[in-house]
Amino acid sequence: MAADYDPDNVFAKILRGEIPSEKLYEDEHCYAFMDAMPMGPGHCLVIPKAPSRNLLDIGPEDLSHLMATVQKVARAAKAGFGADGVLIQSYNEPASGQTVFHTHVHIVPRFEGVELKRHSDAMADPETLREGGEKIRAALG
Amino acid sequence: MAADYDPDNVFAKILRGEIPSEKLYEDEHCYAFMDAMPMGPGHCLVIPKAPSRNLLDIGPEDLSHLMATVQKVARAAKAGFGADGVLIQSYNEPASGQTVFHTHVHIVPRFEGVELKRHSDAMADPETLREGGEKIRAALG
Repeated sequence: MAADYDPDNVFAKILRGEIPSEKLYEDEHCYAFMDAMPMGPGHCLVIPKAPSRNLLDIGPEDLSHLMATVQKVARAAKAGFGADGVLIQSYNEPASGQTVFHTHVHIVPRFEGVELKRHSDAMADPETLREGGEKIRAALG
Repeated sequence: MAADYDPDNVFAKILRGEIPSEKLYEDEHCYAFMDAMPMGPGHCLVIPKAPSRNLLDIGPEDLSHLMATVQKVARAAKAGFGADGVLIQSYNEPASGQTVFHTHVHIVPRFEGVELKRHSDAMADPETLREGGEKIRAALG
């Protein structure tokens, strides 16, 4: 584990089940869940289970697994929400907007003519997250 | 090749050498170059050589190679520009902001207190792109 990885970050706590999350998908390497402060409907996150700070220090095999899962979940988020497109992004280090220092990739369904909200403006209603999670889980099959 | 891949897109032309680009890196699978309409200093792109439309349809091996190269070039862009962070993002389909329909990942160095410009506001000066390319190539070693 890198010296600059803090195992008490929020996503590490989610992985350990110490903080609840609206789970979408899980396998040996990755975990996907709804973003609790969404930029728009269906905004979700994929994280590796292994500790790393961001895409700059993640190991090559973890990165490969992570992105395969990002693709799977992005397809399901687009299908589940009937979206027209998907923004996939990663903020690396605070100057780029990173606030949780466990590697994560944002998946944000996009709709023609609908602007995104700023990230972290507000906590989503848990019921809205649950309903969104249902749509994506159904599309994951 | 997928039915919705147009081999006459701008990045396919760059790969074939029909349009010039400020090249940063190339291997069997990927090509990296400076974005000609940068959101900020050091904005560059990594593309797979194999045809695909975006991260939703790219094949698993191409995706793995692509992201390994994104990590390599992102580290070099951050180091070469002395940046504080890096934004890594992908627009998939027009509703998400995609304008060139060959898979590409944006790498944008970020600096504390400096806002990004909107993408595609203006063509960069070729000399500025060349100087930026020198910094990143030097950091790639």
